Amino acid sequence: MVKVVEPLSELDIYARQGFAQPIGIGERVALVVVDFVVGFTDPAHFGGGNIPQSIARTQALLAHARANGWPVAHTRVVYAADGSDAGAFTRKAPGLLKLTEDSPLSQIVPELTPAPGELLIRKRQPSAFFATELAAWLLWKRVDTLFVTGCTTSGCVRATVIDAMSNNLRTIVVTDCVGDRAIGPHEANLFDMGQKYADLMSCDDVIAATQNRRHN
Amino acid sequence: MVKVVEPLSELDIYARQGFAQPIGIGERVALVVVDFVVGFTDPAHFGGGNIPQSIARTQALLAHARANGWPVAHTRVVYAADGSDAGAFTRKAPGLLKLTEDSPLSQIVPELTPAPGELLIRKRQPSAFFATELAAWLLWKRVDTLFVTGCTTSGCVRATVIDAMSNNLRTIVVTDCVGDRAIGPHEANLFDMGQKYADLMSCDDVIAATQNRRHN
Amino acid sequence: MVKVVEPLSELDIYARQGFAQPIGIGERVALVVVDFVVGFTDPAHFGGGNIPQSIARTQALLAHARANGWPVAHTRVVYAADGSDAGAFTRKAPGLLKLTEDSPLSQIVPELTPAPGELLIRKRQPSAFFATELAAWLLWKRVDTLFVTGCTTSGCVRATVIDAMSNNLRTIVVTDCVGDRAIGPHEANLFDMGQKYADLMSCDDVIAATQNRRHN
Amino acid sequence: MVKVVEPLSELDIYARQGFAQPIGIGERVALVVVDFVVGFTDPAHFGGGNIPQSIARTQALLAHARANGWPVAHTRVVYAADGSDAGAFTRKAPGLLKLTEDSPLSQIVPELTPAPGELLIRKRQPSAFFATELAAWLLWKRVDTLFVTGCTTSGCVRATVIDAMSNNLRTIVVTDCVGDRAIGPHEANLFDMGQKYADLMSCDDVIAATQNRRHN
Repeated sequence: MVKVVEPLSELDIYARQGFAQPIGIGERVALVVVDFVVGFTDPAHFGGGNIPQSIARTQALLAHARANGWPVAHTRVVYAADGSDAGAFTRKAPGLLKLTEDSPLSQIVPELTPAPGELLIRKRQPSAFFATELAAWLLWKRVDTLFVTGCTTSGCVRATVIDAMSNNLRTIVVTDCVGDRAIGPHEANLFDMGQKYADLMSCDDVIAATQNRRHN
Repeated sequence: MVKVVEPLSELDIYARQGFAQPIGIGERVALVVVDFVVGFTDPAHFGGGNIPQSIARTQALLAHARANGWPVAHTRVVYAADGSDAGAFTRKAPGLLKLTEDSPLSQIVPELTPAPGELLIRKRQPSAFFATELAAWLLWKRVDTLFVTGCTTSGCVRATVIDAMSNNLRTIVVTDCVGDRAIGPHEANLFDMGQKYADLMSCDDVIAATQNRRHN
Repeated sequence: MVKVVEPLSELDIYARQGFAQPIGIGERVALVVVDFVVGFTDPAHFGGGNIPQSIARTQALLAHARANGWPVAHTRVVYAADGSDAGAFTRKAPGLLKLTEDSPLSQIVPELTPAPGELLIRKRQPSAFFATELAAWLLWKRVDTLFVTGCTTSGCVRATVIDAMSNNLRTIVVTDCVGDRAIGPHEANLFDMGQKYADLMSCDDVIAATQNRRHN
Repeated sequence: MVKVVEPLSELDIYARQGFAQPIGIGERVALVVVDFVVGFTDPAHFGGGNIPQSIARTQALLAHARANGWPVAHTRVVYAADGSDAGAFTRKAPGLLKLTEDSPLSQIVPELTPAPGELLIRKRQPSAFFATELAAWLLWKRVDTLFVTGCTTSGCVRATVIDAMSNNLRTIVVTDCVGDRAIGPHEANLFDMGQKYADLMSCDDVIAATQNRRHN
């Protein structure tokens, strides 16, 4: 069981070592929506926690992104029905194999249905970048700043954020647009990401800060 | 500040959803030692917490690996002295730029000096796999199982473990051979990794389980 | 126009510089079939040259692979019908955008229909490895040797072979199982690959050399 | 031996199938200089052909790039002196193992010595992108167009160009700034790249077309 109750002095070491400097918003932004699929809304499968609320907030951000012409990418976890692409991840969490192309569980939730021209990525690993064209697609769109939403904070969001930053994208986790099946890991991972990889902003703050980020 | 005190019922959702199945040790193992460099042993730079203890335990595991002929890879974080390779990560944590090729801070600690034939990887991002030849090198050595040691648990170890698993390596975090500058994130990340990406084993258990894993 | 008529002395420099050493067949083999889709059989789209003959030979090799339980992967080029994933490659060769999920042109030819358990890879770039899970899948199958078939020799086969070798796979181009729309580039690329990246073997020689390579 | 003497009608199939459309120069350009190291200038090692002339032309383009503040990256092939990173490529071409960090053969030729702030990439595989930070570095510099120079045209230049295009960079091969140990493969590879992956421009044309491409 996770127990992270630390005296302030323990975590204060991050400040003393100079972490958590702001990266900031660059010249051209995009939005990625990670794995908001039906199977992650139902606690009987992979859901729970604050995932429903984070989907609701992401609806607002997606509307803002579309109104301003931002590139938008969505991800789904999809495994082959014949098990041909099973591997280490599905050995660790065998339930993932239910997420086949046609399963209701692997469909993007109706509130966030991709619009024409938005990129739809099928992935088999935690990161939206691993073995996908996301980095190349963002380069083609001349994006330098990526807002990350989706679930779970401690899983595919965290992995996506590490890769986004490693690819030199200015990476911003939208704190109320990411959710997890349990709140402890959600908060622990927001802490890690905010210290080392990404800026943390609320949905309202993102919308306020990007009123004039119109793309074409 | 990280606060993760959860009723058992909150984290119990992982068990109900079928996470944390053992992946197990495969046919051919290797050891990676992540970023045990001088700058991560000194709390005035990037050190602190239980990193010294984890280095001591890794000495024992490294001796076992060498005695049995395992492939061993070491990583260092190295940035160019002229700043030519700075990017998003060094913007978030500017102190990283001190870790130049010739800086004492970026040298592997003397207890773990690489031996001839062991792979030395220079990296600029958290994962030992990102923009490095580690995956290809392990394939050449026909490795299917990777024991991960190093620091920090919540940083470069976590990133390396996600990529190891995504590359379909059977990935095992050696719990007392990984360390962090603060214990809260150390434990929170062991929890996440054990649920979703890797098996967790102590150094003693690894040594006991691999007595006959002699390579040649 | 390509003109490569060289005195033996010009190309003899490769031998003097030590290229074209055999890599050999390793311990565990797999077969990849690159882009043998309908659109590459018709000269009105992307076909021509010796592609039909190379498909016929690949039928024989695929039967051998299946009889011996080898891992088999097939690739298709697939772009989104809404143009969302267009990029540099489709700018250079706009006809690629016809290869959508449901287009008859992007279906694997009936002679080589994938069997259950074989990996089907959708790709948008020349290499079967670029932004796909092929490398990770081969690692999971413990493969160290890859036989490459498909089309075109000077395009997706060449790109796949460079990446296979870069990933440290022992890579073997099956010379009569790869085809191209024009014979000049076909032969020029076999030369380059045989000198620098891969062993060249005929289909008959592969079958003879792997009579006992039974997997399970 | 390579023999590519084709009736125009054979290669004309490329035009009929719509290849070789211009990609064009985008908004922000960079220059990569691939493997112009001492060992590739000497026919006793890896040199020969038109490599010396291509180095001389690249001097002119490098001066232009520097005068205009373009991002510039250089690559060297570097293997460990202890053989720890040998693999499939060094099995195919064992002479590569001579290219160690301190060998005179692996030093960039004096005419093209990197300047402070230019990226220096050590690589072990043909492509300047494979297992390196080049793509991430170009994204950080907001580059969308890459001019490719270096050697050999049929080797590391071709591999780099495939990856540049696959990463969605507008890729331009500077035809007289790339060289090869033999002219037949040089020309055959220029043909392939010009049809499928990149625009072809002479050094003079690049300089003329980018008079006002000043970066800062």
